[in-house]
Order: sequence, then structure tokens, then C-alpha cells
Amino acid sequence: MVYITRRETFNAAHRLFRPEWSDEENLRVFGKCSNPSWHGHNYILYVTVKGPVNPETGFVVNLKTLSKIIREQVIEKIDHMNLNTQVDFMKGLIISSENIAIAIWDVLEPRFRPLGIELHCVKIVETENNSVEYYGN
Amino acid sequence: MVYITRRETFNAAHRLFRPEWSDEENLRVFGKCSNPSWHGHNYILYVTVKGPVNPETGFVVNLKTLSKIIREQVIEKIDHMNLNTQVDFMKGLIISSENIAIAIWDVLEPRFRPLGIELHCVKIVETENNSVEYYGN
Amino acid sequence: MVYITRRETFNAAHRLFRPEWSDEENLRVFGKCSNPSWHGHNYILYVTVKGPVNPETGFVVNLKTLSKIIREQVIEKIDHMNLNTQVDFMKGLIISSENIAIAIWDVLEPRFRPLGIELHCVKIVETENNSVEYYGN
Amino acid sequence: MVYITRRETFNAAHRLFRPEWSDEENLRVFGKCSNPSWHGHNYILYVTVKGPVNPETGFVVNLKTLSKIIREQVIEKIDHMNLNTQVDFMKGLIISSENIAIAIWDVLEPRFRPLGIELHCVKIVETENNSVEYYGN
Amino acid sequence: MVYITRRETFNAAHRLFRPEWSDEENLRVFGKCSNPSWHGHNYILYVTVKGPVNPETGFVVNLKTLSKIIREQVIEKIDHMNLNTQVDFMKGLIISSENIAIAIWDVLEPRFRPLGIELHCVKIVETENNSVEYYGN
Amino acid sequence: MVYITRRETFNAAHRLFRPEWSDEENLRVFGKCSNPSWHGHNYILYVTVKGPVNPETGFVVNLKTLSKIIREQVIEKIDHMNLNTQVDFMKGLIISSENIAIAIWDVLEPRFRPLGIELHCVKIVETENNSVEYYGN
Repeated sequence: MVYITRRETFNAAHRLFRPEWSDEENLRVFGKCSNPSWHGHNYILYVTVKGPVNPETGFVVNLKTLSKIIREQVIEKIDHMNLNTQVDFMKGLIISSENIAIAIWDVLEPRFRPLGIELHCVKIVETENNSVEYYGN
Repeated sequence: MVYITRRETFNAAHRLFRPEWSDEENLRVFGKCSNPSWHGHNYILYVTVKGPVNPETGFVVNLKTLSKIIREQVIEKIDHMNLNTQVDFMKGLIISSENIAIAIWDVLEPRFRPLGIELHCVKIVETENNSVEYYGN
Repeated sequence: MVYITRRETFNAAHRLFRPEWSDEENLRVFGKCSNPSWHGHNYILYVTVKGPVNPETGFVVNLKTLSKIIREQVIEKIDHMNLNTQVDFMKGLIISSENIAIAIWDVLEPRFRPLGIELHCVKIVETENNSVEYYGN
Repeated sequence: MVYITRRETFNAAHRLFRPEWSDEENLRVFGKCSNPSWHGHNYILYVTVKGPVNPETGFVVNLKTLSKIIREQVIEKIDHMNLNTQVDFMKGLIISSENIAIAIWDVLEPRFRPLGIELHCVKIVETENNSVEYYGN
Repeated sequence: MVYITRRETFNAAHRLFRPEWSDEENLRVFGKCSNPSWHGHNYILYVTVKGPVNPETGFVVNLKTLSKIIREQVIEKIDHMNLNTQVDFMKGLIISSENIAIAIWDVLEPRFRPLGIELHCVKIVETENNSVEYYGN
Repeated sequence: MVYITRRETFNAAHRLFRPEWSDEENLRVFGKCSNPSWHGHNYILYVTVKGPVNPETGFVVNLKTLSKIIREQVIEKIDHMNLNTQVDFMKGLIISSENIAIAIWDVLEPRFRPLGIELHCVKIVETENNSVEYYGN
């Protein structure tokens, strides 16, 4: 069993807020991250899958295949987008790094099983100081 | 003469567009960067000043002073903001990295002269692949 | 269950030595790290906690809260300090990265339980080539 | 139990290909990585070992010892080499990152047991976007 | 006048050697870098151009244009290649970082003039410890 | 004329203080950097030299030679040292990054002239946020 990790990047706008709350309540909990005019990040996404090494190729999975799935299913839908308003699979969520990671997991996880590999971890780096990891449960 | 550089970071939303142009024209020139719902970046700002070393302190300038000026004059006004709509000293500009660097230069340059130092360079890193430098002319 | 990691940095002096040993013995085991006049590092501290995502906020824990605890309990007591002589919670230890990580774990671990989250890992990066991780047992 | 990680780097040439396959088949599966005239990388190797902290030294293992083993057993045999043709312990393998990690694990694993520590992970970073981890089974 | 820098990466094989010299002489001067079976690197290329800011676009040059030129003229011809044997515009050169930078300059410099911008610097980072910069004379 | 840069690292203790001043005055000017029990950094040193490319070797200077000079003349004398008390060529200086850079320049500059190259820049990175550059006048 070997773990293989692909890094992809995307730039996006977001804000942290809860529509049920007043602006004051949002500001108290989320601080400047609740700015109604948005802010944004250079997000880094690490997708780790695991599986046995195919003796024919030396690969757990061809990185071109892995990258293609991540780009088509995730990056093309979120890069240079507003994560709060323009991404179908994040609709209705508070756009925290935690929820971004879980939403991406839910998109990617069923895509890897047909390839005989398993999604192991989705990691989101929001800034050089803050990151989250989700392992699926 | 020694050059001293302070790194600061800010996260902000922006879009590239020219109000005189149609959406199609903006899309043709600026691509996905013209998304009307915004996107954003973790910008890195490098401010380089130059001056002689003060023999009393060993400093060109006290880094606490340098950082305080940059934070008060620039970072507090742009961090977690929408650069197109919420920053007084960028009003009316196309929010390219080039124009961000020039706008920050214009804010900072007069602040350093009273300290006996000179602004040398404002560098903006927008992504790991793209950066600009402005030397004041 | 999501894992969230906060990065903080501190600069400190230390030396590796065992008071029971002669200078020669310390030099033999610890090499130049035993220099009696000290040396130092830009340490990087990664604190990872885990917990369920709060559906009200989208957070495992508010990063402002997490960072405040780490800064007040750890960083303010060790930044720009001599780890061998000036830090109460490291008194009597050999100031290896291993022992720094364990000492920080012991300070932080009881602070997170009242918040409904659990400390998962303390990672200390001493140089770009050397790091340690402690998971609490 | 503490985990300690040593980073080492090596520069090497390789190509991905399967001798049983035609050039066309190799090109189809491995793409430009199958170039018969080779290409190469600045590989980064992370070796993580685990063990209890020795109360005499504060160390899981002396980093000088750890680095010496990795350099003598691995780095000196692969740095500035052609991994396909010049490395005894990689002979006959498809030189994927997966197989490089496993081959290095097999060399290092028996060396650590006499020191009372255990190899935990071999990580190979091939490019800033691609890495693999092997935990021994 | 603003300076704008684009980062691109390429992975390639090379060796340092002078065909007029014996193997011993090549080994004496170039060390392990003269290995006849090649080695390789993840090279990083920084291309800096300078020019006035176009008031219509806020750009010195559209980064899509800049990147396209660098990729078509340089990266596609050297990525995953053997720099000694497979690159027309490096034929007959000793493949040092110095000569790589000069060769890339000579390819790129005439391409930027028609765009009203000027090539300022070609920087090649061979390893994290070694880099060269060429400014055209 | 090509510029070539070598990166070296060293870990050292220092404090900022002026012996003529009281502890209060030192604290007022230098803040926590004046801690009498020292603190320290992982310093990064970049040495840039310039010269013509030797057509025989493709080198401005052999990097092994460049690195050997920097290590013997500088790194071995400052790595794991107390810069205030243990380094001959920094005696009597306030150990600011500015003065460290100038002191290293003065040591290195005469060493390169006999090789037909010229020292161009000494850069000291003290933390990820602070750095200085000295060009010799």
C-alpha cells in the first residue's frame, strides 16, 4: 500500500457568514472574514489516494489520470470563482476550510473506487498559517 | 547603503475588468480573472527601503517602525477587503498587480523620507508564478 | 472528524547538554549543539487539533481562539527566550526538539478539552532538514 | 513515542518505461516521462523514524547518526546517478516514485532496528506537485 | 516602468563535461556532475520583463501572452528533455546554469520587442542552493 | 556578465543591545531582541558574485570553489556560535542583520578578486519576514 499525493491550486473569493445571523453577530464570530464585499485566497489542495503498486506500471495510479480527475471534477468548478455563490457542490454551506475539504471529498471519493484506489485525505491550505485535513469520517 | 526588506501578507478579493468594456470584451482580455462575482488571492507584499546604517543602533530603520508604517498605511486598509470597491487609494484603478504595486508605492513613499530612508522597491506576489516589482519611475 | 492545523513561529536560543556530563562528553554526544555560549533557531510550531465540524459556524474551532490559546500559553513564554534557562515549563529538560514538542503538548492538551476538541499533534520544525512530531503517547 | 524526520535531497536522472513494451506503448502510458534520452529531478527524501525518547540525551535518535545512515546507505548511491542503470538496489524496477520509496525503505528498514528505533515512513517528493509515502506494508 | 516576473518549471537531464577533455579531467573539474549516465534537476525559470503600464489594461503585458511565449519558445523544447543532446538552441554548449540562462535569453529576447516590452532578466534555479541570473550583457 | 548565487545556512545566537545604554534603554529600542539571555535564528546567507562565463567550463566560477570559500571563511566561524561573543570579525558590532551582512562582505570581498570574479551582493534572511542586502557601498 503506497500513498500518493497530488497538489493543485485555485484562487477564489469567499466570505464566512451565517444568513440567519445579523451583521453584528457575523462580525463577532467571523471577524473580518465576514466582510460582505468578499475577500479571497490562493488555496492549495492536496489530494492523497492509496492503493497497491501496479507491477506493470510501477504506479498506484497514473498521475495524469489523478490530476485530470481533480481538475475536471473540482478545480475547473472552483478556480477563480466565488465559493459562496458560484459552486454547485458547496451551495448552502458556510465556506470554511473544513467545509471546503469535506465538499471536495464528497465529489472525489466515488471517482477513485472504479480505479481500484481509495481516497485517503483531502487537505486544504488556506494561508501559510492555517490548514485542514479530512479523512472521510 | 544597505537595503532592508519587510514581508507582509494580505488576503483580498479583486477582479480585472474595464467598466467601459462589454462583458465579452472583458472576458476576452482578462479571461476568468474578470469573473463579476470576484475571486481572490493571498497576496505577499515586500517593501524594500534603503539608507545608511545608523551607528547607534546598527539599523537602517527599526523593523518595528517599518512594519508599523506598512501595517497602518497599507495592510489595515486592504487586508480581507475587496480591492476594487473598498480601498480609497485604489479607487478607479484596474486592480492588476502592477497597479496595486504603484498604488502602495504612492502611499508609502512620502512616509519614509522623514525617517531619513528611501523607498526602493514595492514587490507584489499574486501567485507563486506571478509577481511584479515597482521602483518608483 | 476534521483536523485543523495552526502554524506559529518563535525564535529562541538553546543548547544541548547534560549537566552531569563533562564538556568533552557533551561535545562528543551533542557536537556543536552543545556550545556553552548558546546558538538558536527560527522554530516553527504546528499544532493540530481534531473534532467534529460545528454546523452553526462550519468550524472545528475558531482559528482566532486556537491561535490565542497557543500564543498566550506557549509563544509568549518562549519567543525570543533562552529555552534552557527562561521557560518554566521546560525547566530541567534537555532542550531537544523531542522534549520541546512534549513540553508544549503538556501545556496545550488540557486547554483544548473544555472546547470540545482534542489535541492531535504537536510538530516542531527546528531546521529545514529536521523536525519531530508528538501525538501524546 | 516521538516521530523524527530527516530531510535529504538528491538529484538524479530517470525515465519511466517498461522494456517489454514498444516505444509507442511506453509513450502512451508514461508520456514524456518515457523519453529514451532521460530526464531528471531534484528529489527530496523524508525519512521518519519513531521511538521512545532516551532520557539521557533527550533524543529518539541522534540526528547525526540518522543522517549518516541515510547518506551512506542511500544518498551516496543515488545522488547524481541514473536511477535506471546505476543503482544496485533499484535494478529491474520501473523507476516510479512509488518504487523509489519502497526500494529506499527496504534498504533502510533493517538499519534502524539495532538502534532501538523503527522506520515509520519514507516520503519521496518528485516535484512540487507530486509526492508518495510508504509505511512498509 | 514596472517589472513583471513569470515563473515556469521544467524537469530535464544534463551532465557537465567538455568533449575535448578526458574522463579524468572532466571528473576533476565537474565532479559527480560529469556522470556519463546523466543526472537531472527540477529547474525553475524566472523570466522578468519590463515596460510601462498600459492604461487600458493595467498590464505591462498580459500574463497569458507572456506565459504562452515562454512555454512555446522554451518550456516545450526543454521540459523532460536531455539538455545536452535534445535541445537545438543549446547544441554545442556546456550545459551549465550560466549557459542555460544565456541560451534562453537569446531565444526570448527578440520575441518581446514587438510587444513593446523588454526582457530584463532570465534566472535559472538549479537547486535550492544554486541559481544564476543573466541581464543580457 | 552573469550573476551566480550560492545559498548557505547557519544557526546562531545573538542579542541586540548597546553596552553604553541601560537595560531600559536597550529594551525601549530593541524590544525583546535585547533579551540578555540571548535568542537565535536559522539565518540564510545568499552570496552573489558576478563575472564573465569561462568558455572552457561554462562557469562564472566553480560552485564547489564558491561554496568552499564561503564555508571556510564564514560559515565555519559563525554556525552554532554566539555572534556577539564568539566571532572575531563581528567583535564590537551591534549584531543587526545589516551589520552581519557588511561584516560578511568585508570577509569575502578580497577572496573573490584573485578568481577574476567580483562580489555583487550579500543577503541575510533573518526570518521569513525580514531580510537585508548589501552591495558594498
